[in-house]
Amino acid sequence: MPITGKHLIAGEWTQANPPWFSSIDPRTKAAGAAVFADAGEAEVDRAVSAAAEAFAETRNYPAEKRAEFLETVAAEIEALGDELLQTCDAESGLGLPRLTGERGRTTGQLRAFAAHIREGSYVDAIIDTALPERQPAPRPDIRRMLIPIGPVAVFAPNNFPLAFSVAGGDSASAFAAGCPVIAKGHPSHPATSELVAQAIARAIEKCGFPRGFFSLVQGAGIEVGQMLVKHPKLAAVGFTGSLRGGRAIFDTAAARPTPIPVYGEMGSINPVVILPDALATRHDALVSAIAGSVTLGSGQFCTNPGLILLLDAPAAQAFVRDVAGAMQAQAPGILLNAGVETSLQQRVSHTLGKAAVMLVAGGEVAHSDGFCYANTVLQTSAAAFLADPDLQEEHFGPVTLFVMCESRAQMNAVIAALAGNLTATIHASDAELESASDLFDRLREISGRLILNGVPTGVEVVHAMQHGGPYPAASMPNSTSVGMTAIQRFLRPVAYQNMPDALLPDALKNGNPLGIWRIVDNVHTRDAIG
Amino acid sequence: MPITGKHLIAGEWTQANPPWFSSIDPRTKAAGAAVFADAGEAEVDRAVSAAAEAFAETRNYPAEKRAEFLETVAAEIEALGDELLQTCDAESGLGLPRLTGERGRTTGQLRAFAAHIREGSYVDAIIDTALPERQPAPRPDIRRMLIPIGPVAVFAPNNFPLAFSVAGGDSASAFAAGCPVIAKGHPSHPATSELVAQAIARAIEKCGFPRGFFSLVQGAGIEVGQMLVKHPKLAAVGFTGSLRGGRAIFDTAAARPTPIPVYGEMGSINPVVILPDALATRHDALVSAIAGSVTLGSGQFCTNPGLILLLDAPAAQAFVRDVAGAMQAQAPGILLNAGVETSLQQRVSHTLGKAAVMLVAGGEVAHSDGFCYANTVLQTSAAAFLADPDLQEEHFGPVTLFVMCESRAQMNAVIAALAGNLTATIHASDAELESASDLFDRLREISGRLILNGVPTGVEVVHAMQHGGPYPAASMPNSTSVGMTAIQRFLRPVAYQNMPDALLPDALKNGNPLGIWRIVDNVHTRDAIG
Repeated sequence: MPITGKHLIAGEWTQANPPWFSSIDPRTKAAGAAVFADAGEAEVDRAVSAAAEAFAETRNYPAEKRAEFLETVAAEIEALGDELLQTCDAESGLGLPRLTGERGRTTGQLRAFAAHIREGSYVDAIIDTALPERQPAPRPDIRRMLIPIGPVAVFAPNNFPLAFSVAGGDSASAFAAGCPVIAKGHPSHPATSELVAQAIARAIEKCGFPRGFFSLVQGAGIEVGQMLVKHPKLAAVGFTGSLRGGRAIFDTAAARPTPIPVYGEMGSINPVVILPDALATRHDALVSAIAGSVTLGSGQFCTNPGLILLLDAPAAQAFVRDVAGAMQAQAPGILLNAGVETSLQQRVSHTLGKAAVMLVAGGEVAHSDGFCYANTVLQTSAAAFLADPDLQEEHFGPVTLFVMCESRAQMNAVIAALAGNLTATIHASDAELESASDLFDRLREISGRLILNGVPTGVEVVHAMQHGGPYPAASMPNSTSVGMTAIQRFLRPVAYQNMPDALLPDALKNGNPLGIWRIVDNVHTRDAIG
Repeated sequence: MPITGKHLIAGEWTQANPPWFSSIDPRTKAAGAAVFADAGEAEVDRAVSAAAEAFAETRNYPAEKRAEFLETVAAEIEALGDELLQTCDAESGLGLPRLTGERGRTTGQLRAFAAHIREGSYVDAIIDTALPERQPAPRPDIRRMLIPIGPVAVFAPNNFPLAFSVAGGDSASAFAAGCPVIAKGHPSHPATSELVAQAIARAIEKCGFPRGFFSLVQGAGIEVGQMLVKHPKLAAVGFTGSLRGGRAIFDTAAARPTPIPVYGEMGSINPVVILPDALATRHDALVSAIAGSVTLGSGQFCTNPGLILLLDAPAAQAFVRDVAGAMQAQAPGILLNAGVETSLQQRVSHTLGKAAVMLVAGGEVAHSDGFCYANTVLQTSAAAFLADPDLQEEHFGPVTLFVMCESRAQMNAVIAALAGNLTATIHASDAELESASDLFDRLREISGRLILNGVPTGVEVVHAMQHGGPYPAASMPNSTSVGMTAIQRFLRPVAYQNMPDALLPDALKNGNPLGIWRIVDNVHTRDAIG
């Protein structure tokens, strides 16, 4: 299929108008053949209005129909074949092995949400039956379940052009809930976005969904997103990207006449604590694990370990040198785009401008035909880190900052000073587990996922995953953007009072025709009532 | 116990400083003996800082310890005896029978939350065990549960001086979660707030909780609340009150360097649709039910039915007259304070200033020694209602607005135009149930609770209750302030990756020592693992 550069507005491919932008191959800095342009107010309005109309239908679709749609989207993405991978590779420089894996994750999570809604208990049905004899007044029958919230805008990030983009986790969970999606494509991979939108459009036709269930608006500037978030018919936002971008979206949504929830996942520095005995007994494995995790995907993961806390000692200093050596022994990877390279260069220079920060390795743009930055290791003291909250800013790329602590008390102080993070990791020997327990108790307060003897990169798409955390890791501390509970972001509860069985949704009927788990008069059960 | 007028800051009763305010007996307009004053920045800072310190302890308290605390608070409130009811009656004019009931609801919900956390499944434990053989890489063990969010500010409303105030539903659910509370007392019932704070303080002593677990700051102005919401150590806000007040709190919280969630319940007009056959066959019962619900508690409920939709017909017009007659036959009740009377007078005058709105009954301040407004019935056409969103503003008091619709299509248009509401009610005969089903499908999109053949007043404290709804009924569409799921507002998920049993919280240990319901490898179970 040729790339048209058009927007997909409720089933129609709509001519874009200049000024144009193109994707840039990050390996060669050559512009792609297709040209794209920012959607205007008319496109955004038609997309959201069509989504609201589609929602009037899809909000009552049975789970089976939605599950089939999710599976069809997955199959249509697979049917794009190598063209998708090659297009995506040319736009992202992430390489075919990684993108093949990411495609599998994308289709895997679409299918996992299909299974999740087929099972059906996610609607969290709670039933309190009537007490007609209660004094002084009878208690009515009250039944509560989760229903879809309405049209959702999805903002794609640069770093997961498939798994967090147009048909990524946010879209999959919104679709699963029954919510239409208006995707704002990331300007770093517009052709990839268009191909995936084609796949979704075909699934909509095959499954007989209303065309307004999905739209793709492209855009290189911030205006498209702002128009989208301000649209009165929008109900919620899923965002993955930078803190600056996410906060701008959050602020716009909060300032609406009718505020709407913004579920923003805005990156993180993912502190890693390595305790001395673990360091002593697993030095080589840890060097390899840390160097590998920092440089994985050129460091362009929101779970990249950007902060490593050590108790200062000769062994700890040797460890820093060895991680730096291992990272320098690897050729620096390609970065996603010019913006990532420029921001990283500025951010590292800014950090290195501080007297207390030492450059151990890297620290400069790498020689390459493409966008590329040297694998970089920085080091500072806990005292300096505590004195300068600016050192908690993310360096998005293959960069990590070692913070040398003089004591456990100082390490505790550093942890207490940390802002919210997606993850926190401890490496501990068996003898250090009790000590790790105390540290985890502290780290828990500033993070969403706690990891023992592992690396934060690699986010499993499972029911129990939590990918979020206190601000600024996420804009809503009580949500996740990965894992099956991500669907909860796009649901809201509604209660039915004294409703006869015929008027109740299936999930709440006496006979439990869906066979789901419910809480009935405070008992967890799949049994029918009566 | 004498009323001191002091603030309770982490166990210390702190001298207030002028300017003073007093509570006013709404029946006589006489000032109470005690004087109170607005808390200052120092009090607010000490209260929130002490709460953050207390949280470091209480966040790891077992459910049993928290449950005992909730039950002790309930017992201590009961131990206040008649003094509490009389003080509250003198401050609110709500009458002893209502306040006796409201006290029962207050202690009942404290005990219900105790039972809820003892049962323990509210932590929503989800476990995906490791797949060590998975290719290309082993899948780690991931376990997720809900943990408390941190110090919570609770803003009490005027209209539930016990059940939604200092030890009301917001405080009970925050305490149940393990979160410290800083209550901002409502200036309409400061002595009541102080008595309840005494009860909580005694429970803290008896249960050995840290004193920072609860503070009460009094205040008549908006500054105290603003300081509280801006405090960097605050984690969340529970608010019940007016849209204007709730939105101000929401805006302040959203503008923080670190935004925090505001769970605001901000009132509602609670549309009621009465279908023709129900009207024809149950005329007298409906007159009595509607008149009773509009005037209950002098109309000062957030679930007050403030909007009644009828299909225009002679029978409908007769119904309006009969409801007006029934409401005029009742003596108008006492209002909570001068502000409620003034606002109601201004709001009704404003509405009556519209050419399309007709006064059927009432519409003026009532002759009384106290604050009092005539039971009031207004009427307009659906066309006028559709043309003027201003007619959706709440008249907080014993007032309802009938909207006469020319057709079902016009009624549907009115429903489509409605902003968010806490409830929506339909009265339908058996023959009209199918038709009601379509209306409920539309009303569901703008409300949190759907009621058939009942009245919206009377909110049951049960597991399945949903007391919230789309904005402006609530600031967060996916939460409730009544019912057991209200605890979810003050929890957030955290995941543990590859953690040995000894480092896991009890809720996630293999043996399931708490005996709670969990989802283990996608199976709902109370069984141990392995």
